Amino acid sequence: MKVIKIDHIGIAVKSALDASKIYTKSLGMHADEEILEGKKLKVVMIDAGGTRIELLEDLDSQGTISKFIEKRGEGLNHLAFEVDDIYETVKQLKNEGYRVTSDPSQGVNNTIVTFVHPKDANGVMIELVERRKD
Amino acid sequence: MKVIKIDHIGIAVKSALDASKIYTKSLGMHADEEILEGKKLKVVMIDAGGTRIELLEDLDSQGTISKFIEKRGEGLNHLAFEVDDIYETVKQLKNEGYRVTSDPSQGVNNTIVTFVHPKDANGVMIELVERRKD
Repeated sequence: MKVIKIDHIGIAVKSALDASKIYTKSLGMHADEEILEGKKLKVVMIDAGGTRIELLEDLDSQGTISKFIEKRGEGLNHLAFEVDDIYETVKQLKNEGYRVTSDPSQGVNNTIVTFVHPKDANGVMIELVERRKD
Repeated sequence: MKVIKIDHIGIAVKSALDASKIYTKSLGMHADEEILEGKKLKVVMIDAGGTRIELLEDLDSQGTISKFIEKRGEGLNHLAFEVDDIYETVKQLKNEGYRVTSDPSQGVNNTIVTFVHPKDANGVMIELVERRKD
């Protein structure tokens, strides 16, 4: 079981398109916009040289991103690691007493994802991502 | 002028050594500890496959990390990009109306660094890092 790399950094914003300007127009990075209907999110993905920045705009005023912004303001939201085996990683974490928010489940683009509880990781919401080969 | 990659992600913690355990013991990443005397910081650097995680522990109860934790709790603090030319990048950002917290200055390990004001970047403190070749 190992961490391959940082998969992405999630940032909670009110407008993903507005927030993307500093990364694209000013810093010259490439962006792609995506609507995740199921999760009621608009996402602008910034390609930052092997790792991505995920600008998350909630399309639901009661969604988790909206609630995060209401409580803490816009800003850094979570840190995602790509792992080679998410089930092994979760088993290891649980053995050591870390709480995982749910069983690994289908994410976008053929991934399986879950989160470590931020209270068990010094306030950082850690996402685990396994990318399926098939 | 271009962004080379995400240089590191800074996380504000009360104890860098305690906070490192999930990344090292559980997730198998390599860590190095460093004391930055000038900045009164203890830093544990985690190697996360090309990008690093910087766990920042303040040795000064009145320092910026202490104040961040007091205000917001432990958690994600800043996002640092490696750029090829920090002066050009700052010029570009200023031209577009972004505020930079100070002129680029000497960072650790032969770097020049500065920060974009988080109010101009949707609550994200963006650090710019240029690594000197000489």
